Amino acid sequence: MTSLTEQTAEKHIVLERDGDVAIIRLNRPDRLNAFTHQMGEELISVFDETDADDSVRAVVITGTGRAFCAGADLGGGATTFELEQQESGDIPRDMGGQVTLRIFESLKPVVMAINGAAAGVGVTMTLPADVRIASDDAKFGFVFAQRGLVPEAASTWFLPKLVGLPTALQWTMGAKMVPVAEAHEKGLVQQVVPKDEVLSTAIAVAREMTSTTAPVSVALTRQLLWRMAGASSPWDAHRADSKAIYYRGTMADVAEGVTSFLEKRPATFTDRVSTDLPEIF
Amino acid sequence: MTSLTEQTAEKHIVLERDGDVAIIRLNRPDRLNAFTHQMGEELISVFDETDADDSVRAVVITGTGRAFCAGADLGGGATTFELEQQESGDIPRDMGGQVTLRIFESLKPVVMAINGAAAGVGVTMTLPADVRIASDDAKFGFVFAQRGLVPEAASTWFLPKLVGLPTALQWTMGAKMVPVAEAHEKGLVQQVVPKDEVLSTAIAVAREMTSTTAPVSVALTRQLLWRMAGASSPWDAHRADSKAIYYRGTMADVAEGVTSFLEKRPATFTDRVSTDLPEIF
Amino acid sequence: MTSLTEQTAEKHIVLERDGDVAIIRLNRPDRLNAFTHQMGEELISVFDETDADDSVRAVVITGTGRAFCAGADLGGGATTFELEQQESGDIPRDMGGQVTLRIFESLKPVVMAINGAAAGVGVTMTLPADVRIASDDAKFGFVFAQRGLVPEAASTWFLPKLVGLPTALQWTMGAKMVPVAEAHEKGLVQQVVPKDEVLSTAIAVAREMTSTTAPVSVALTRQLLWRMAGASSPWDAHRADSKAIYYRGTMADVAEGVTSFLEKRPATFTDRVSTDLPEIF
Repeated sequence: MTSLTEQTAEKHIVLERDGDVAIIRLNRPDRLNAFTHQMGEELISVFDETDADDSVRAVVITGTGRAFCAGADLGGGATTFELEQQESGDIPRDMGGQVTLRIFESLKPVVMAINGAAAGVGVTMTLPADVRIASDDAKFGFVFAQRGLVPEAASTWFLPKLVGLPTALQWTMGAKMVPVAEAHEKGLVQQVVPKDEVLSTAIAVAREMTSTTAPVSVALTRQLLWRMAGASSPWDAHRADSKAIYYRGTMADVAEGVTSFLEKRPATFTDRVSTDLPEIF
Repeated sequence: MTSLTEQTAEKHIVLERDGDVAIIRLNRPDRLNAFTHQMGEELISVFDETDADDSVRAVVITGTGRAFCAGADLGGGATTFELEQQESGDIPRDMGGQVTLRIFESLKPVVMAINGAAAGVGVTMTLPADVRIASDDAKFGFVFAQRGLVPEAASTWFLPKLVGLPTALQWTMGAKMVPVAEAHEKGLVQQVVPKDEVLSTAIAVAREMTSTTAPVSVALTRQLLWRMAGASSPWDAHRADSKAIYYRGTMADVAEGVTSFLEKRPATFTDRVSTDLPEIF
Repeated sequence: MTSLTEQTAEKHIVLERDGDVAIIRLNRPDRLNAFTHQMGEELISVFDETDADDSVRAVVITGTGRAFCAGADLGGGATTFELEQQESGDIPRDMGGQVTLRIFESLKPVVMAINGAAAGVGVTMTLPADVRIASDDAKFGFVFAQRGLVPEAASTWFLPKLVGLPTALQWTMGAKMVPVAEAHEKGLVQQVVPKDEVLSTAIAVAREMTSTTAPVSVALTRQLLWRMAGASSPWDAHRADSKAIYYRGTMADVAEGVTSFLEKRPATFTDRVSTDLPEIF
């Protein structure tokens, strides 16, 4: 296991830091950061790192160069998507979906800094983020049906939750290249800024979610919202949040949260995600 | 069992009537109507009353004084949220969630008349209502993560259904105090009016849902919509509404509904929620 | 089994063609295309035809005359909704729901050309379509509770996914007749055009979803989005789309899709929905 912080020529992503914000760069600028199996594995691995590292409060993903991610690397040509069956006989799991499910489970807020075009898995990988900031020249290619493919990376679950079902149907069945203005209007993108402000804006947005909040509370809130988005009944949420309130109620953070509020001063939270996160599901 | 209509000094809510609309007041104005365990129990109990009383067509909840509800009463200080485990060993159920699940099951439409600030459980308790009318000075505090807590009252199931998942994530992970204009724009609030018109507007909105409709139909429609909002498949709705159509088809209301339509006159519905509600789930 | 293309006086719908777009007309103009049991059976049957016919790329539904569909035919008067129990003792299935569940499963995109008023099942039958184009004099009657009925045709599952839960609650509990402008603003209708342009616009929208895309990809995308709209977890989508990518990856369409992209020319897809659709659920 090599830490992703040790840069080698072969890495397809780079991990940087801005204080308590981890910045992941898709880092194949000569290929418009086209997605590879290796890039997928590195992304999954780096989220294990950011989850485990209490000095990381939030994660920002961006691309190096002018594009965010041009989609799957088509260097394999016509056979790019011929996946080998597993030895077990199981259908191989789509790598894009392995990445989005890992981001779905992130214990830290995730903000996408979409610095240019995002197509195919380049856009579907952004869907499980909590916020998407896009450059004013970004565009979003839901082009799967034009390549004979289908929207992958579990995007048919994620996308309607962000933009609504009618828009998701039109974009994907029409294999649309969506301009950033439409993406913003429909709710895929939360903010559009000039290209050179995408990363700094994303970092600022990440800080808004972390500067006054308890890390364990944010981790629990993130898990609750993403999981309950598909839950069949409010009872599922009631069971989970009752546990969260119960366990949190006796921990240092709540005492500090209530006391600091009553004393009208900022709180200093000490519970740690790595050691103090209760199991509520 | 004391009826909530018998006012005593100890009650934390008051039940009033405006014709066929029941008005519940959170009634601790000196504490900005801060939520207590007792208030939760009284709210649950009063919904049993309004459901059982055929003279009640709709329920409006408002607050006495300048705030709607300042959230959980923090009079207990740092130990406010230290709940005792049940004798059974079970995790205690969050009281806010007990209230929202009861409102979720209400057989009468519920309209919130949010007459001022609503924070914590003060805002999450409003989510299972059918409509939220807010005063132009209202604000909505999703402050849980700033107190070391998490969004409770099953709000992680309810909130994304009202404002969408991206907004729900930003408000709760950022522990935002949301101004009424933003709450309106994002769909949390359906109408913003001057403070002294909040209650009358809420009553008028309640009447729009009851003045021309059959009470049993409204009760079934409410149950269907809230339950199907999380159902995995349209087959769940098909099974339930097929039963509803079948049972209703032979009842007096449908004969009257069709006949009055053909005769171009208002309908007079006679089926009663207390006795004529078919079991469709 | 008579093909619906053989017109007889008794048919309640007409099937027409405009190139690769099948046009279904609700065809009882003297009854404002009021819905009958027979019309429901014919709609279900015609979707079996359009699914099986590879020369059909999309389906448009419209009404003959000035209305789209006035709702259930009330010719039976007060007993219209008295359904007979099945011999099996089972509750009879609502016919509107049988139609919407069939449209839900359509393998071709479905566009509604709503050429005038749509009430009751006349509006709920449009909900499982991918796009709704409406005439500028259209209106949408969610009038069930005013007839003693409930929203049927599984509409309590579909409607909140199109317009959000708060709007769905207000329209159905209030038995609203919704003007086309409000329907457009809330997302029920995607485009409003003059009455004489409704059908041509719907056909054009259908072509946008089919002119550059692989038929099998569109069929899979449609199924994935509609089914995952209610799925509890992104894992459900991951399992299904992993299969879709795996099976599609070795088929002619993907080779052509990737090659044509690399050669910067339009693709010519040859896989057929009737024979080449993989089972992914």
